[in-house]
Amino acid sequence: MTPLNEQEIQQYRTETRGVAGLIHFNNAGASLPPDVVPDTVIDYLKEEATNGGYETEAKYQVQLEQTYDLIARLINADRDEVAIVENASVGWGLVFNGIDFKPGDEIITSEMEYVTNLMGFLNAQKNHGVVFKVVPNDEQGNFSMQGLEELISAQTKLIAITQIPSTAGGMMPIVEIGKIARKHGILYLVDACQSAGQVPVDVKEIGCDMLSVTGRKYLRAPRGTGFLFVRKEVQDKLKLILMDSFAADWVSETEFKIRNDARRFELYEKNRALTLGLGKAIEYALNIGVDRIWQRVQYLAGLMRTQLSAIDDVTVHDFGAEQCGIVTFSVAGIESAVVKSKLAEQGINVSVAKAISTLIYMNKNHLVSIVRASAHYYNTEEEIGVLCEALKAIRD
Amino acid sequence: MTPLNEQEIQQYRTETRGVAGLIHFNNAGASLPPDVVPDTVIDYLKEEATNGGYETEAKYQVQLEQTYDLIARLINADRDEVAIVENASVGWGLVFNGIDFKPGDEIITSEMEYVTNLMGFLNAQKNHGVVFKVVPNDEQGNFSMQGLEELISAQTKLIAITQIPSTAGGMMPIVEIGKIARKHGILYLVDACQSAGQVPVDVKEIGCDMLSVTGRKYLRAPRGTGFLFVRKEVQDKLKLILMDSFAADWVSETEFKIRNDARRFELYEKNRALTLGLGKAIEYALNIGVDRIWQRVQYLAGLMRTQLSAIDDVTVHDFGAEQCGIVTFSVAGIESAVVKSKLAEQGINVSVAKAISTLIYMNKNHLVSIVRASAHYYNTEEEIGVLCEALKAIRD
Repeated sequence: MTPLNEQEIQQYRTETRGVAGLIHFNNAGASLPPDVVPDTVIDYLKEEATNGGYETEAKYQVQLEQTYDLIARLINADRDEVAIVENASVGWGLVFNGIDFKPGDEIITSEMEYVTNLMGFLNAQKNHGVVFKVVPNDEQGNFSMQGLEELISAQTKLIAITQIPSTAGGMMPIVEIGKIARKHGILYLVDACQSAGQVPVDVKEIGCDMLSVTGRKYLRAPRGTGFLFVRKEVQDKLKLILMDSFAADWVSETEFKIRNDARRFELYEKNRALTLGLGKAIEYALNIGVDRIWQRVQYLAGLMRTQLSAIDDVTVHDFGAEQCGIVTFSVAGIESAVVKSKLAEQGINVSVAKAISTLIYMNKNHLVSIVRASAHYYNTEEEIGVLCEALKAIRD
Repeated sequence: MTPLNEQEIQQYRTETRGVAGLIHFNNAGASLPPDVVPDTVIDYLKEEATNGGYETEAKYQVQLEQTYDLIARLINADRDEVAIVENASVGWGLVFNGIDFKPGDEIITSEMEYVTNLMGFLNAQKNHGVVFKVVPNDEQGNFSMQGLEELISAQTKLIAITQIPSTAGGMMPIVEIGKIARKHGILYLVDACQSAGQVPVDVKEIGCDMLSVTGRKYLRAPRGTGFLFVRKEVQDKLKLILMDSFAADWVSETEFKIRNDARRFELYEKNRALTLGLGKAIEYALNIGVDRIWQRVQYLAGLMRTQLSAIDDVTVHDFGAEQCGIVTFSVAGIESAVVKSKLAEQGINVSVAKAISTLIYMNKNHLVSIVRASAHYYNTEEEIGVLCEALKAIRD
């Protein structure tokens, strides 16, 4: 694998109009898209306004279908294992709630699980009497494979893991967890919202049954886009919560026939311009190579951690053997919201990670809120330098 | 009420770039938006690409919130009874599936109910053992209030009605049905997909508990937009199927607190440009006056029915005392799909209504597919004339 060179980085920056006016380290919130993404969406919307919504959709049928192929390539799935959804939460929720939970069934998750998924567990606890168990991190703060094995029982119905936590720089060992899930024949649901577009995601390697992704983060796709992977063999085991005549065929007044692929989890109506934009964003990432993106993201985030750590009063909170593009830190004596807003005044976008996003982890580590600066491949060493100088000025 | 005058019509046409190049009678599929709608969406998308997705959302917080006020005004609801959703199907499905159905519970619907809702009944039949009953139309083809009263029993849990059927020109008497629902204390769910933006919709007058709407049809809003009304008093009676940290607050590992308004039925992530576009479309309709829109739509559709009926070999299939902008017809000896495609060649957009959309009605009337020409206020008498001449040419 050849690292991204300076010329390539400059090209990608030229193709991203947003980098001209600001330094964007909020890629874990919503990244700046490559120009081809908004341009595709805008051109399609203009055509719809001129020729009609259904008429334009019919014309672009082939291109719209290609988005499914691109998603399949991105995650090494088959195209009939892919559904396009408005956001990862609806995708995750539809498959999670499609599981035939019985009272006493157990769900295992990590300390780093994303809050929306935790809410899903609470809801299932209330509605179905399931129990959810949290694998405690080990002493180094890493996910404990031994802890996982110890929690597995005959009642374990599901292992649900967020690959990259929203508010920490670490990563969950999802391939190793997948091996355990398969060994015990337990359903395995992965939230890849922060990982897709940042790190190579291969559902066959992970061995997951279901995986949810949002478009707006490291994939650089439009807001209001996402997708869902559901392994072929698992599709028929999940109940459909929502269903329209696109998801199933009416047979008679007592019978319906569900379609034979993952698009059963979609409802027909969506914004087709956004579907095309999602496809363009994925194509852009595939053309660069997600492995090369991942290498540069790790390099930049590592550089950022080193330089931030060298600033007095700045503490970096990330942990774990393998770290990602999310860098979390705090500045002694200055609230995270103030740090964010002072950086914004200088054209530097970061975000504030509140305790609620990964509550179990944040509470355990007595963190109320931290600053999150998330690097993408189109960021530069110079931008990291500017961030650090700005932080020094804020601190002074 | 003053009817729309010629000058106003011309102004609305000037503000709709789509009408310049084609004759659009597919408003019941997806209408042509007023320019302000795509322009607003496009400007917002450009700003997102330049300044970041979350950063732009923060800047437009006030305008985004106004969309809820505009929806509330449109349907005479309170703003805390409104949720914005990707499409009416997800809105309808979330509240329908939130009902605490028990085996033996009964649902009453009409012959004209939309297929997606019928699929929901079938699914509930399978998952919860509920029974759904269909009110047979009377001899004139109208909804039978007497038939409704006869079907109501102590087991009736829900009355679910599509106000304007997808494939016929008639309308359901939703206000009268609402009176019956309230008299018996039965939950009342209205699908207003074809009605919002076409006919004044007043949830207090209808007396419904829940109402679902899509944006792309008579509202002239972007694809991938819709909203949901849930009456204040009913919100706590519905289970939440999907839930994120925007819909509820995490209290502890055994407890959560659902937010105190209808936005509990939303998930956080959506495309904000589309939310603004939805608001602009509603504002545009309110500025004209939906009662005036309704008057013109009925006038144009009536004219179209008269002129179509005068053509040999053309049969108009609409029925009912009160008729809407949807005109359905067939041409003897020519398949509906052929009629549609020949009209499209001449720049006239209509759609084909397949039996599946309103299966019970279509089967009963031995209709496989019919042509649907749906008029909106921005259409003209001249356009109707061109349609009729084109049909005569096709027939010859």
